[in-house]
Amino acid sequence: MASTSPEPAAAGETNDPIRIRRLELSDHERGFVALLSQLSACPDLTASEFATRFAELAAQGDDHVILVAEDPSASDRRILATGCLFVERKFLRGGGKVGHVEDVVVDAAARGRGLGLRIVRRLVEIARDAGCYKVILDCTPELRAYYAKCGFVEKGVQMSVYF
Amino acid sequence: MASTSPEPAAAGETNDPIRIRRLELSDHERGFVALLSQLSACPDLTASEFATRFAELAAQGDDHVILVAEDPSASDRRILATGCLFVERKFLRGGGKVGHVEDVVVDAAARGRGLGLRIVRRLVEIARDAGCYKVILDCTPELRAYYAKCGFVEKGVQMSVYF
Repeated sequence: MASTSPEPAAAGETNDPIRIRRLELSDHERGFVALLSQLSACPDLTASEFATRFAELAAQGDDHVILVAEDPSASDRRILATGCLFVERKFLRGGGKVGHVEDVVVDAAARGRGLGLRIVRRLVEIARDAGCYKVILDCTPELRAYYAKCGFVEKGVQMSVYF
Repeated sequence: MASTSPEPAAAGETNDPIRIRRLELSDHERGFVALLSQLSACPDLTASEFATRFAELAAQGDDHVILVAEDPSASDRRILATGCLFVERKFLRGGGKVGHVEDVVVDAAARGRGLGLRIVRRLVEIARDAGCYKVILDCTPELRAYYAKCGFVEKGVQMSVYF
């Protein structure tokens, strides 16, 4: 997550102007938090608050990856989509690792272009390369078909307690 | 997770001989990995492998907690039940935190005594005290009623990709 290097283009994406890369500290100024507000309650963070959380997550190295999509040719280079992967280390499965996909959202004005799928597929690749034996995510029932396009199948139910 | 202090007894538990405490390094010798094998494929780990994973998780401090149940009066003090909580830090919800409950299992010979519920309730308390705005878990549909006893309600579907 701390890397400022763009992700390499995947096969078939070379003509697509949208770039998928890791979150950068300067993305606070490119509407990253406002984009998340299309997913959940999301009050803005000050630059200092953003930098603190960014540093906490960067300290997790490759166990925590946030990808973003941007159009490098756009004047404001606002973030168009994002998705997160974090790696959980377990004792079971021979000391196995599980990838968790969280906080996938595409800007309402940029939907229908496959940006979310590109990000999720890239996150799944990263999890596999990291040695995870599976990747999981929770979603609403309406999104089952969407994530099926990335190879996900329904496995169980998500339960929650809100405080 | 690195603490060797027992969890304080909760109200109403003072006459229960079973102690709920954090995982200790020496629990490798008390059947902790064998207990997990009742939940998922779980080849044994060498003492060195166990210690390495233990240290990785201990480095996460209170963001990663594994609780275990033991009977202090038993000669072998084998682990009877366990459950895990890890804390995910987000940018949304004002830089909010989410607790994830994982790997809850009760030894087949110790079921029906409420040990799993005691552990899950304790994990939920820990998440709340850590400032999480919610706690989530994934389970099979058959376990909905079980987790409802701890205040969980169904929220969505879990999707997965296995490698």
